[in-house]
Amino acid sequence: MSLSGRMLIGGRGLFGSQGRLYGIDAASGEVLQPAFGGASSADLQRACALAQAAFEPYRQLPLAQRAAFLLNIADNILQLGDELIERCQLETGLPRGRLENERGRTVGQLRRFAELISEGGFLGVRIDPAQPARQPLPRADLRLRHIGLGPVAVFGASNFPLAFSVAGGDTASALAAGCPVIVKAHPAHPGTSELVAQAIVRAAHSQGMPEGVFALLFDSGHAIGQGLVADPRIKAVGFTGSRSGGLALLRIAAARAEPIPVYAEMSAINPVLLLPGALEERAEAIAQAFIASLTLGAGQFCTNPGLILAVDGAALQRFERAAATALGQAAAQTMLTPEIGRRYGQGVAALAAHPRVETLARGRPGAGNQAQSALFATSAAAFMQAPDLHEEVFGAAALIVRCPDREILELLLRGLDGQLTLALHLGDADLPLARQLLPLLERKAGRLLVNGFGTGVEVAHAMVHGGPFPATCDSRSTSVGSLAIQRFLRPVCYQDLPEALLPEELRDGNPLHIPQTIDGWGPS
Amino acid sequence: MSLSGRMLIGGRGLFGSQGRLYGIDAASGEVLQPAFGGASSADLQRACALAQAAFEPYRQLPLAQRAAFLLNIADNILQLGDELIERCQLETGLPRGRLENERGRTVGQLRRFAELISEGGFLGVRIDPAQPARQPLPRADLRLRHIGLGPVAVFGASNFPLAFSVAGGDTASALAAGCPVIVKAHPAHPGTSELVAQAIVRAAHSQGMPEGVFALLFDSGHAIGQGLVADPRIKAVGFTGSRSGGLALLRIAAARAEPIPVYAEMSAINPVLLLPGALEERAEAIAQAFIASLTLGAGQFCTNPGLILAVDGAALQRFERAAATALGQAAAQTMLTPEIGRRYGQGVAALAAHPRVETLARGRPGAGNQAQSALFATSAAAFMQAPDLHEEVFGAAALIVRCPDREILELLLRGLDGQLTLALHLGDADLPLARQLLPLLERKAGRLLVNGFGTGVEVAHAMVHGGPFPATCDSRSTSVGSLAIQRFLRPVCYQDLPEALLPEELRDGNPLHIPQTIDGWGPS
Repeated sequence: MSLSGRMLIGGRGLFGSQGRLYGIDAASGEVLQPAFGGASSADLQRACALAQAAFEPYRQLPLAQRAAFLLNIADNILQLGDELIERCQLETGLPRGRLENERGRTVGQLRRFAELISEGGFLGVRIDPAQPARQPLPRADLRLRHIGLGPVAVFGASNFPLAFSVAGGDTASALAAGCPVIVKAHPAHPGTSELVAQAIVRAAHSQGMPEGVFALLFDSGHAIGQGLVADPRIKAVGFTGSRSGGLALLRIAAARAEPIPVYAEMSAINPVLLLPGALEERAEAIAQAFIASLTLGAGQFCTNPGLILAVDGAALQRFERAAATALGQAAAQTMLTPEIGRRYGQGVAALAAHPRVETLARGRPGAGNQAQSALFATSAAAFMQAPDLHEEVFGAAALIVRCPDREILELLLRGLDGQLTLALHLGDADLPLARQLLPLLERKAGRLLVNGFGTGVEVAHAMVHGGPFPATCDSRSTSVGSLAIQRFLRPVCYQDLPEALLPEELRDGNPLHIPQTIDGWGPS
Repeated sequence: MSLSGRMLIGGRGLFGSQGRLYGIDAASGEVLQPAFGGASSADLQRACALAQAAFEPYRQLPLAQRAAFLLNIADNILQLGDELIERCQLETGLPRGRLENERGRTVGQLRRFAELISEGGFLGVRIDPAQPARQPLPRADLRLRHIGLGPVAVFGASNFPLAFSVAGGDTASALAAGCPVIVKAHPAHPGTSELVAQAIVRAAHSQGMPEGVFALLFDSGHAIGQGLVADPRIKAVGFTGSRSGGLALLRIAAARAEPIPVYAEMSAINPVLLLPGALEERAEAIAQAFIASLTLGAGQFCTNPGLILAVDGAALQRFERAAATALGQAAAQTMLTPEIGRRYGQGVAALAAHPRVETLARGRPGAGNQAQSALFATSAAAFMQAPDLHEEVFGAAALIVRCPDREILELLLRGLDGQLTLALHLGDADLPLARQLLPLLERKAGRLLVNGFGTGVEVAHAMVHGGPFPATCDSRSTSVGSLAIQRFLRPVCYQDLPEALLPEELRDGNPLHIPQTIDGWGPS
């Protein structure tokens, strides 16, 4: 396996003619070889035409074959071995251990979706048998299952070059749902993207998949990504990135003749509430755990805890002192790209210069593209008056907001934007207050957690990685966990079909042994 | 109970100051008393503020209380008795029997949603218990349920003044999901709307609901409807009506700062495929059933069969003759409004005057706002060349497209827009062809049916009343049946919450006795 700089369209490598991209060594800023050729509009057209042609044969494959394809992708990613990890390290500056974990997560995700589709529950089968004797009118035989929406465009994230990029969560759930996928490679890790795309294409070949089931496009500007979202053959979009990027894609989608679902996960500051009892009991321990979460992976997580809310007083001062001490020892870490490093620096500088913001601590200084962690504090009044203090600074920077009392704390919570996560630290004495706040909190976030931090998103059935706008643009879904498959499905009802015409999933006697809900759940 | 011309905001009647609306006797065109006062912008603001305030207390009510509210609405609608039926007859021209059935359906729908929420399966509860001993990292305790999105705006349909209007499917499913509802009354049946809204408000009073749980607004123009969709407190929109109306609301929604789900059910011609064996066996019987479905309720159903597709030949000629004879005897029927009657007349006149369309038959002529049914035929080539022949003519008019062979029939199917329903008539000999077409058909419609017609939409668990654009703007959902409740819900994950903080639905031991999916479905 070696890097060629080629995209993958129709299962074949193709060096794009529309400009060139290069990977950049995140640590040194040096240009990495080879060059990657950008897709032309004709390349985009061809990828879309092939995806459309692949949809029908791909979605009709037996579920076991679709599952085998996903399992084979996982195996092929593992077989890339160190080449993948090393290239990814260069392109992202992320340490080997983290990337090995992330590879495990990526592979695990593909395997779980393979399991999920083999099991068949995702089809949401419902059968309401005919009632020929019903008065005044007989009831027809009604059977429902879900099918894929069609080709899906995936825009990977810079901060999860494996688990949320070419073969990441969106790709895995779309392929599992029976939808061909076209990935627009993230420009920050083109080499990683090509290697993983090769692993997918080899799996597609060896499993006999239609050639348009997957494509990888490089985009030397923004035209290919925009064209992908606008193309009438694309039926859904998965995106993880900045708010400006997500909103731009939403605007393009809104101008289409045919509306399509756009799942953009954009930004969050993931507030952490420290309730009085918790601070009283263990301010220092929470501070340690907070700084560990804040600085994990240079703070480059969607669920990074960027905002601390608490009632001011002696216990909060203890927390601040302990957090400042811990942060002061935090090593500088290489940021994903020089541009992300530069923006982090700007965000931190703006906070430091803000007339109503106090700098509590800085981490150890770094060199080059290494970022220095930062911890700030401000008053509730300042926070409520300054919308810029509500914005995400992507990286290991957090703001503590000191509230004069619980009423102001609650008022401040009410004014928060939608979030991916909201964490609550509490002691036994805090239960009544927590119970009172809970309804407000669950309206603000996709995931609530107690005595923990949001980093570390489990791939599980009960996970929600999503939330109200602007955390995402569609709070009805999750991008992590088994529920994510529903984003790429729609229900179809089959009325009075003879047995011989019915899809196997819907037949009497349940030949595929999948979950079928017959005549609803309750009394009917 | 008597009509006052008042809207209902905060549980109180209010005569709007912004222009006046009147019901119109659909048969005679005469103006009906009383006048209805249109809402002002301040009224809209007040309704939205009250709905927002009601959301929190309403969604937190025990499910049994929410269910009791829905049941009470149903009872109150029945108690309106003949006054409702008679006013509705005047405003819509629909016959008493039909309206009594529709009232039954409306009440049945409310009761089924009450049952559904009592049973609790709609919460989609998933529990992944903690795995403290897992290596390399322990797994947190993760629990998921669905909660309501927030206040919902409902735009009722002209053609279902009870079942898809003020207390219709959208209102029932939104209230069931825990969302307050603001209805923009359909201008074609303001009196019916006021009576039903009074029934809802009486139920809200007697069941102790928050006053903002429901509001009815009259709109003397379009500003109130538009303002409702644009208001930041509105979190979802349900609409049933024309394509132009639905697309206009979508555009308003797309311009919001916060994107929200818009469920617009717009237009469909509900193609009917007559396969060769079916025509050979029973052309005349299918023709009779077709004309009965076409002319039912003056053809004013979203699922009205407006397009017949078949391979030309002797058997199709038998079908055409029998259909023409049956249609010739069809009585003229009063249309819902003079405007709908006028537009039907225009649509039929355009088809009759189309150089490549043949008029096969007209129903009996009528007087005033009565519409004369119409049956047309054209060639596949003409149909493929003329996009205007693909458009819905709302009413009892249909077009037969004669295809020279199966290949052209399939080509024509590929070019069809998304539909609510697609019917297939087949004999035993047609099974192979039907099996071959099925994958294409299920991509084109929300519901496929065999040897029947789409009119008569069962309120069931396995029903899908929806479909690909432009039938609706969001094919991921249905507006009829129990699955409709999912349109107004979003998932929330609770991580490591102590028992005392967990919502009851998510607790160990399942105190509410609702469906809980524990650790997924398959092997994990």
